[in-house]
Amino acid sequence: MSRKINVTIWNEEDNNQAAYPEGIHTALAAFVKEHEQLGTLRTATLSQPEHGLSHDVLNDTDVLLWWGHIYHHKVSDEIVDRVRDRVIQGMGLIVLHSGHAAKIFSKLLGTHTWKLRWREANERERVWVIDHNHPIAKGLDEYIEIPQSETYGEYFNIPKPDELIFISWYEGGEVFRSGCTFNRGSGKIFYFAPGHEGFRIYDMPEIQRIIKNGISWAAPVGYPKISADHHPKSPEAMYKEAHNL
Amino acid sequence: MSRKINVTIWNEEDNNQAAYPEGIHTALAAFVKEHEQLGTLRTATLSQPEHGLSHDVLNDTDVLLWWGHIYHHKVSDEIVDRVRDRVIQGMGLIVLHSGHAAKIFSKLLGTHTWKLRWREANERERVWVIDHNHPIAKGLDEYIEIPQSETYGEYFNIPKPDELIFISWYEGGEVFRSGCTFNRGSGKIFYFAPGHEGFRIYDMPEIQRIIKNGISWAAPVGYPKISADHHPKSPEAMYKEAHNL
Amino acid sequence: MSRKINVTIWNEEDNNQAAYPEGIHTALAAFVKEHEQLGTLRTATLSQPEHGLSHDVLNDTDVLLWWGHIYHHKVSDEIVDRVRDRVIQGMGLIVLHSGHAAKIFSKLLGTHTWKLRWREANERERVWVIDHNHPIAKGLDEYIEIPQSETYGEYFNIPKPDELIFISWYEGGEVFRSGCTFNRGSGKIFYFAPGHEGFRIYDMPEIQRIIKNGISWAAPVGYPKISADHHPKSPEAMYKEAHNL
Amino acid sequence: MSRKINVTIWNEEDNNQAAYPEGIHTALAAFVKEHEQLGTLRTATLSQPEHGLSHDVLNDTDVLLWWGHIYHHKVSDEIVDRVRDRVIQGMGLIVLHSGHAAKIFSKLLGTHTWKLRWREANERERVWVIDHNHPIAKGLDEYIEIPQSETYGEYFNIPKPDELIFISWYEGGEVFRSGCTFNRGSGKIFYFAPGHEGFRIYDMPEIQRIIKNGISWAAPVGYPKISADHHPKSPEAMYKEAHNL
Repeated sequence: MSRKINVTIWNEEDNNQAAYPEGIHTALAAFVKEHEQLGTLRTATLSQPEHGLSHDVLNDTDVLLWWGHIYHHKVSDEIVDRVRDRVIQGMGLIVLHSGHAAKIFSKLLGTHTWKLRWREANERERVWVIDHNHPIAKGLDEYIEIPQSETYGEYFNIPKPDELIFISWYEGGEVFRSGCTFNRGSGKIFYFAPGHEGFRIYDMPEIQRIIKNGISWAAPVGYPKISADHHPKSPEAMYKEAHNL
Repeated sequence: MSRKINVTIWNEEDNNQAAYPEGIHTALAAFVKEHEQLGTLRTATLSQPEHGLSHDVLNDTDVLLWWGHIYHHKVSDEIVDRVRDRVIQGMGLIVLHSGHAAKIFSKLLGTHTWKLRWREANERERVWVIDHNHPIAKGLDEYIEIPQSETYGEYFNIPKPDELIFISWYEGGEVFRSGCTFNRGSGKIFYFAPGHEGFRIYDMPEIQRIIKNGISWAAPVGYPKISADHHPKSPEAMYKEAHNL
Repeated sequence: MSRKINVTIWNEEDNNQAAYPEGIHTALAAFVKEHEQLGTLRTATLSQPEHGLSHDVLNDTDVLLWWGHIYHHKVSDEIVDRVRDRVIQGMGLIVLHSGHAAKIFSKLLGTHTWKLRWREANERERVWVIDHNHPIAKGLDEYIEIPQSETYGEYFNIPKPDELIFISWYEGGEVFRSGCTFNRGSGKIFYFAPGHEGFRIYDMPEIQRIIKNGISWAAPVGYPKISADHHPKSPEAMYKEAHNL
Repeated sequence: MSRKINVTIWNEEDNNQAAYPEGIHTALAAFVKEHEQLGTLRTATLSQPEHGLSHDVLNDTDVLLWWGHIYHHKVSDEIVDRVRDRVIQGMGLIVLHSGHAAKIFSKLLGTHTWKLRWREANERERVWVIDHNHPIAKGLDEYIEIPQSETYGEYFNIPKPDELIFISWYEGGEVFRSGCTFNRGSGKIFYFAPGHEGFRIYDMPEIQRIIKNGISWAAPVGYPKISADHHPKSPEAMYKEAHNL
């Protein structure tokens, strides 16, 4: 129950991101640090060696948050493969906002996840809770009102989510699957759309709650060690040997 | 995190169930009482007034375990409807073994859940973990060996599960979706097949672990108060009023 | 390929339904009759003996369309159970608009399907296609514009759909899972929300296309005869007998 | 209804594959050619220029079958990306047997799909139908008996399938999700496990039926043209302009 969760927050920039002069990773860290199960909290950025995602860091990370936007192409394929393998091994991944177009997200999902409708119109977004008994929706009201947001819209080129938690309504006529989960190997992935660099949406208590809930949900359980690949002996043969049958 | 979970264990009989002279509810209670988040633990049986499931008991229950076999028809429809409504409102429900044919299970699922293959042959069952990152699989190995079990087999007349956690292999050639989950309203349902009255399967540590994990998983989250039904005002109108737009 | 599909259209009223003086079942039949695989086309209404749904009619029906609104409570439980059993046996079911509150829908789904937000405001509805490779979306554009509609909204008290095909946007700020499918036994169920009695939405070619696609999709395939229930012999024993092993 | 389906069968080898001296693609073509909706039927192999999968061939292919085993690493990444993009655009893909480890399969699914249990023991496999109303199960019995097969087993490192149609039982104690579907963009994917090179399983009428059903199912529907990416105007603004509102 009281196991600690180690969190790493990745951002493509070091600071000066529109409404976030401190950098979005710093804004995220400011409330993630209050997570009651938090173990180690790290931030990592594109400009660091290995983008701050060394094997040591990843192996010590239970949940990775990912915020990227205009520098997706600068993320090295080697690091992307490393993160992918670590997710399949069990690390949770929370992909935020324009991270939908990140290499790591499309690599894990298998589709052209960068394809969706979008407009920058500073219009209203209303995030409706669809899955009321999902741990990520814990403590929310029926919907969250975001006064000004970037507009995303369907068709969003993702596989069918394993769970659809939020659907957003936008003033201009779009809808969007703005909160959904996927499983890949032993790893859990949560995509959450709200979080444009132009508005301080990450200061909203409901948004912080969702991300903190997401961290709790995505943290690895003590899953079985999987002994896949070639097995010369069948389970039935092993059973009979063990019981002298 | 440390919220307490109130559990009620329902059984159709008071005692003397084959390998369980103390009654299966008592055997279940013997290990459920060690659940680290346990609040109140109750048992309830068919012969009690209202089958032990008064409004007060249900309203104070977070997770209900259900074991029934030959007396499904004796459970009153009124109580079944009451339990159904409580599940939709958020109470977790764990249906065990032959409870697949219980009125409450078929009512919540909508199908002929009593239909499946079965034989009593005292053969081996091997329960494979399919969903390695599900909280209910926490701490397990790749499979669980049950030396003697009742044989269940497909086709099992259930809706497509929301999550398929376990698939059982049987010595005689059958397979069975032996652990799966469903959502109904704000309530979570976990069906788990192993648990025949003829063998003390509930004494196996792995089986106890699964049921305890199931209790943690099925406990209600603090889900939103849903204000469904007629709303004379639209969210958009309410927003504009509130902001004098 | 060229197998004929027998369709029965059920309506709670005989005629004089607001914008549909001829009755909604008659309006539906007017375009369903052009379905290229159509076999027998029947209509049935509440006032007929057995509500027009005798065993003979149901056994000869491949897909049943259901439109009801204010007389759900007048449908006899016996007929509801009969329809339910026929769906589980393989008959397709298309539930339209306010049929979300029909006894047959909540019985098959297991939840309080009558619960959703709604307003009659004659506002715009925009039906977005989310599942682009579903047969029910065949031939559509990205979205369908309905100039005036009744407003439905989440939270809609249904189990997680097996497939989510359409999400509706409403002018007043709501979203709604307006087109989704469920499987129950060998039967397929399609719920489609647009279709208020006050506007002739069923005259729109896109809406007709969706309903015709739904009929093709919901028609039973030649599914296996299921020999569930007690099997004294295991598949493995039968194999060994047959091969003298 | 009578639209033709163009099928291309890909194989890593030209001929001389154990029990299939003619090559597995030729064995598959021998019965696929009887598909009643068949348009053009092509085969393609690794040794051909562009592995036989030029842009022209792929653009004229509705459903691609893929059989590979020991030469997955010889398939060029450029061709894999090309096939992936064509699937997302709408081409159906049927991955057979050891094709689970093909680059194209793991790229579309996002996981380590090469990981599963396996043994070559010439043991019995019994393929149980789990999803009785899926078009791919059309015309089958409850299970298919394969007298000698290669043994695959869980855990199989795939995302949760959109649909689970078959679960296999193996004599030695394993189970396997042997028939399942996935959606990626506008494309449908069907994975089907039986089909070892050492036994002429592809001569079995039930296996042929499943593959032919799979072709019908995977063929693209007339899906919407998706106009994703930046949209300067909102649907609501376009509506108001069009209606002078």
